[in-house]
Amino acid sequence: MLSYITTGESHGKHLAVILQGMPSGLPMDLNYVNEALRCRQSGYGRGGRQKIEKDTVEILGGIIKGKTTGAPIGLLLTNRDFKIDRMPELTRPRPGHADLVGALKYEQGIRAVLERSSARETAMRVAVGSICELLLKEFGMDVASHVVRIGPAGAKVPDMSVAEIRRKIRNSPVYCVSPKASKEMVSVIDKARRNKDSVGGQFEVCISGVPIGLGTHVHHERKLDGRIAQHVMSMQSVKAVEIGAGTRLGEVFGSEAHDEIFYTKKLGYYHKTNRAGGIEGGTSNGSDIVVRVTMKPISTLARPLASVDMKTKRVAKADFERSDTCAVPAGSLIGRTLVSYVIADGFLEKFGGDSVSEIRRNLRSYLKQCHA
Amino acid sequence: MLSYITTGESHGKHLAVILQGMPSGLPMDLNYVNEALRCRQSGYGRGGRQKIEKDTVEILGGIIKGKTTGAPIGLLLTNRDFKIDRMPELTRPRPGHADLVGALKYEQGIRAVLERSSARETAMRVAVGSICELLLKEFGMDVASHVVRIGPAGAKVPDMSVAEIRRKIRNSPVYCVSPKASKEMVSVIDKARRNKDSVGGQFEVCISGVPIGLGTHVHHERKLDGRIAQHVMSMQSVKAVEIGAGTRLGEVFGSEAHDEIFYTKKLGYYHKTNRAGGIEGGTSNGSDIVVRVTMKPISTLARPLASVDMKTKRVAKADFERSDTCAVPAGSLIGRTLVSYVIADGFLEKFGGDSVSEIRRNLRSYLKQCHA
Amino acid sequence: MLSYITTGESHGKHLAVILQGMPSGLPMDLNYVNEALRCRQSGYGRGGRQKIEKDTVEILGGIIKGKTTGAPIGLLLTNRDFKIDRMPELTRPRPGHADLVGALKYEQGIRAVLERSSARETAMRVAVGSICELLLKEFGMDVASHVVRIGPAGAKVPDMSVAEIRRKIRNSPVYCVSPKASKEMVSVIDKARRNKDSVGGQFEVCISGVPIGLGTHVHHERKLDGRIAQHVMSMQSVKAVEIGAGTRLGEVFGSEAHDEIFYTKKLGYYHKTNRAGGIEGGTSNGSDIVVRVTMKPISTLARPLASVDMKTKRVAKADFERSDTCAVPAGSLIGRTLVSYVIADGFLEKFGGDSVSEIRRNLRSYLKQCHA
Amino acid sequence: MLSYITTGESHGKHLAVILQGMPSGLPMDLNYVNEALRCRQSGYGRGGRQKIEKDTVEILGGIIKGKTTGAPIGLLLTNRDFKIDRMPELTRPRPGHADLVGALKYEQGIRAVLERSSARETAMRVAVGSICELLLKEFGMDVASHVVRIGPAGAKVPDMSVAEIRRKIRNSPVYCVSPKASKEMVSVIDKARRNKDSVGGQFEVCISGVPIGLGTHVHHERKLDGRIAQHVMSMQSVKAVEIGAGTRLGEVFGSEAHDEIFYTKKLGYYHKTNRAGGIEGGTSNGSDIVVRVTMKPISTLARPLASVDMKTKRVAKADFERSDTCAVPAGSLIGRTLVSYVIADGFLEKFGGDSVSEIRRNLRSYLKQCHA
Repeated sequence: MLSYITTGESHGKHLAVILQGMPSGLPMDLNYVNEALRCRQSGYGRGGRQKIEKDTVEILGGIIKGKTTGAPIGLLLTNRDFKIDRMPELTRPRPGHADLVGALKYEQGIRAVLERSSARETAMRVAVGSICELLLKEFGMDVASHVVRIGPAGAKVPDMSVAEIRRKIRNSPVYCVSPKASKEMVSVIDKARRNKDSVGGQFEVCISGVPIGLGTHVHHERKLDGRIAQHVMSMQSVKAVEIGAGTRLGEVFGSEAHDEIFYTKKLGYYHKTNRAGGIEGGTSNGSDIVVRVTMKPISTLARPLASVDMKTKRVAKADFERSDTCAVPAGSLIGRTLVSYVIADGFLEKFGGDSVSEIRRNLRSYLKQCHA
Repeated sequence: MLSYITTGESHGKHLAVILQGMPSGLPMDLNYVNEALRCRQSGYGRGGRQKIEKDTVEILGGIIKGKTTGAPIGLLLTNRDFKIDRMPELTRPRPGHADLVGALKYEQGIRAVLERSSARETAMRVAVGSICELLLKEFGMDVASHVVRIGPAGAKVPDMSVAEIRRKIRNSPVYCVSPKASKEMVSVIDKARRNKDSVGGQFEVCISGVPIGLGTHVHHERKLDGRIAQHVMSMQSVKAVEIGAGTRLGEVFGSEAHDEIFYTKKLGYYHKTNRAGGIEGGTSNGSDIVVRVTMKPISTLARPLASVDMKTKRVAKADFERSDTCAVPAGSLIGRTLVSYVIADGFLEKFGGDSVSEIRRNLRSYLKQCHA
Repeated sequence: MLSYITTGESHGKHLAVILQGMPSGLPMDLNYVNEALRCRQSGYGRGGRQKIEKDTVEILGGIIKGKTTGAPIGLLLTNRDFKIDRMPELTRPRPGHADLVGALKYEQGIRAVLERSSARETAMRVAVGSICELLLKEFGMDVASHVVRIGPAGAKVPDMSVAEIRRKIRNSPVYCVSPKASKEMVSVIDKARRNKDSVGGQFEVCISGVPIGLGTHVHHERKLDGRIAQHVMSMQSVKAVEIGAGTRLGEVFGSEAHDEIFYTKKLGYYHKTNRAGGIEGGTSNGSDIVVRVTMKPISTLARPLASVDMKTKRVAKADFERSDTCAVPAGSLIGRTLVSYVIADGFLEKFGGDSVSEIRRNLRSYLKQCHA
Repeated sequence: MLSYITTGESHGKHLAVILQGMPSGLPMDLNYVNEALRCRQSGYGRGGRQKIEKDTVEILGGIIKGKTTGAPIGLLLTNRDFKIDRMPELTRPRPGHADLVGALKYEQGIRAVLERSSARETAMRVAVGSICELLLKEFGMDVASHVVRIGPAGAKVPDMSVAEIRRKIRNSPVYCVSPKASKEMVSVIDKARRNKDSVGGQFEVCISGVPIGLGTHVHHERKLDGRIAQHVMSMQSVKAVEIGAGTRLGEVFGSEAHDEIFYTKKLGYYHKTNRAGGIEGGTSNGSDIVVRVTMKPISTLARPLASVDMKTKRVAKADFERSDTCAVPAGSLIGRTLVSYVIADGFLEKFGGDSVSEIRRNLRSYLKQCHA
């Protein structure tokens, strides 16, 4: 039901996005959106650009008197560091970036490639996803994400509710629930910066309150896990997506791998474990949606790797542009909003989607049926 | 450019698929397709159903005198074990399956759910993907996949070419390149069977010869890695998808994570390492496409887990239907064809797609440009 | 929500289609589908092929024990006149057909083009659309179509209900509501046949009982009239699509062009006229959906037009293959099912779509709201 | 390949659009776009709003140093008459508008509906379509449109080249090629205005230089005529779409209906007549694309029609908001850009689409093949 297109370049005057398919009648809490944008800009390990920008969005359409109308929602963000026409052309592509492949594919210079492939575009994806989170919240769902690894520093993660996660990361500079691991992660980032290096990591997204039945088992393109995987994997730097226990499920026997089914009149059908990460048969099963995501280290290194000058075809050090040391904390926020987008999409698909009041009626009648 | 829809149930009379978007002029080697179907049915750990069926496809349309015409290609497979109308209704959903969520979502019995959610449907996805492999081969690409883990038994995998992989798995009952690991994997499967249990694992897909420039960095929905992740994650039992070094990239520093760039007149731009798994910035970079996939253990257990009877709402052991012990070897074949599908799609998108001869001209002219 | 792909060639062994997106729990009345197929084959002016074939479909999937399951529905039709591999290659493209453009675009012979471009493919579109009609009927909608012109012979059409139309065309060999016009139309067809010529015409599709609110005004791709126009215009031979009073609305003033709005407690909002053809602002308005369609004469002429031999590039008479004299009556049936498809799609989109029982609840609650 | 989403309301601060899928390397001539916007605002019969606004667009993304980069193109237009939050709520829906259906469907007030359903949104569709025209021109295609009817005043239209049409409408206040008919049309509009009425009409779009082979005969959703019909029918006020001789083809015999085929070495295959409007078998045939479009009269009448007050459910005159008397001249411009969009889309689909230089190579090699 939902779709969106973003536009804009890293050092262009504006970034913008248009999101289509949201129902009418949803109160638009721009503070929530702007707070998500602020979190995306924060997190230990970010570089100088984030000190220049203070991302907030302006509404272009789709909202009248503070509520959605069902029409496409447009959002505009203005870059302070607007200088695209003064930025130099580059000729030495950075390993790990789109530089080389983009220049060859589009038969143009590297500058036109990196201005678009830059993760600055994710600001608009966060804006879209946080609007989706407003929809999820309207219907009792809750979202959180947290960093579980920065390079060699991994956090042990106990079972936690989504609300706990959200509370616990609040004081961590790296959005990690463990104060001890947070410290280790900060040192790893410091070490990387000292070495003119960068560092990768992992984060987890959790969404609670998702009704049973989003996605489907009947057609491959509509399976919820496939759709989550696509959206998350298409985020800059992501190299692995796991649902629930993920890769660990390849190491075990079936008797340890599945979540037994229980029922009480009050709760309906439920599970006590959640190895499935809330998705069975491509469909949400009522447990928390849990997605674990791995990001590679940022490709722009202050001590550049070997490359080739595309003009001379000679060996050269890769170009360097101002960059972050570690984007994993920011990434955890981006990933959260991307998963929220997919859940919102599956939710609107399941319940029909023209107004919040209609959806509420449809949802209630379905939930009643599920408990019967 | 490509899309397809499958139809059919596990114990229905037929399975079928229609694939749209293939160019004209591709010789249709049905032996290749049927051989892929045979491999899907094989692999140590498969159950009794595979002994009954001998999957081969009949052409419904899109091929005239042995060549594609550009029209949608229809394929039909006939089930020997056709008995859908005599199959009993079930009421005790199997944990890990679509049984419960499908019954609630579609407000129908479990039988109608499991007949469709069954991995038997992947026969048609293999048929589609292997036709895509014929296209890839026509343009010099090569495909392989191999099992790297069955439960606790993991294989050490040296660097290998796609051709080597294909050769080495030939004699392994579990499609693993290492004879030693193969043996261990077989014992793990035997153990699982003895214990009335099932077991998961991991496999890797590799595709060589993919030109630089499939996918794109400009729009999230067209990124090649996202599209691979969607298609692979939507396969039954898959819980994790990794590109290249995948989760390991979360543990390292940037200086160890990227693939330096080289150039020679003969090879054009190339890399000596392949941590990226052939994709940078959502775009193929000319290295082998490498995708690592984790499958959970099969959900149907001969010693069933706890469930709830949907009629009485009382605690009950889950239903049992004839099933495999381990589907990872078969899964490796399925996964290979799914990745091939995405690469074929990206290939047709890049080069325009009406006839093999037109594509050949367009590809040549592009490659010449890339080397310039 | 709905999509489908057809496969098969005019003289291939089979035609097939897979339809995705139908809800579960719809009783599958194959007689209804086969009766629609029979009507497509009938109608005065059809040629020899229709005497050979007796189209009925076999189910490939998506139906268990006579009901839809929510899974893709596959249908198979077997051609009696199966001889594709013995059909001669053609070299002299028929003006008006896809022959020339298809041969050039796909860089192949004309045979491979005409086997697919043949209107025989519409058998599968009729099968799909008539399944959609079963859904419409389940929710109180009713469908009909009737021929209003064959060449120079036009019928005067009084205001009629959908039920009346269906009843009145029953005894007309050309599916026209007026016995007098029917006779004239038959003579026109006879004249065309005598002259080794063909002849075009017009038909009208009417659907009653469509709830207010299918389609939307907010986004161009989801407007109901646009979607109808696409599906109908993509039917072989169609050259014009009109909604409601259509072209006549270009000749009048606003005061004569719109449908005033009324309200009673029993009926809710309604109109007494229907110049809009049931669609305002891209959205159904509760009046009958009325679509008028123009078909050009069949392109295959027994007295062929001038063409060029593609081998020699010399002037030549176009090739001739067995064909109909007039396909407008058959076309009226095809067009009806195509419009039904679009209405079903808009209906499922509006009300969410997993089971007939869920849709029924959602629809009721919406209609109650509309009357409030 | 192409897709776009518009955002913004009639009296909102901004309108915007994002267009995805344009290749890199296209020089962006903003004057051309702004001139199209100016023409959309002009034409005899427009109302007061057009005197307030002076539509020009600002680039949000996708263009660097005057050329497209392959990234989505964002365009922003700022409304002078920005007052959306001060606009009164309406309760008496205008017959012919989306007012009633939109209010019921989205369960909100009429204001939120009309602000989006307003044809002001077409400014962004014109912006998108005129960028597509820049692409068409880059490859030798040429576009024009002209009004052929305003209410009772019809123009006799001789055969003309696209260039002639463009030249001849320049001095007509209603964009009509005939000075005589222009005068009559102006009187009709004056009469409508005097009577507090509105009036409809017809226009024709013509595009020359379109290569053979855009669209396809193989799949219904990709047929070029269907896609044109969808986009044009989804334009505000349009009630009929005809390709080539359109409705007239229903009145004739086959011998008068098709375009014979000719060949010379210089021209390749061509036709001397163009009843097909440049499309056979859903595919462009090298002749001019000709589309005839009927617009109903504007629904907002200064002497309002009968309606119902949605609050009281009592009979009432419909609400009135400032409006045009006749939008057909403006509509002709909008329609032209919509058809250009579809042709550009089919063009990019056929030739692959990453850069203007790559497309040029692919096109040349194909045209050479077509002539062989």
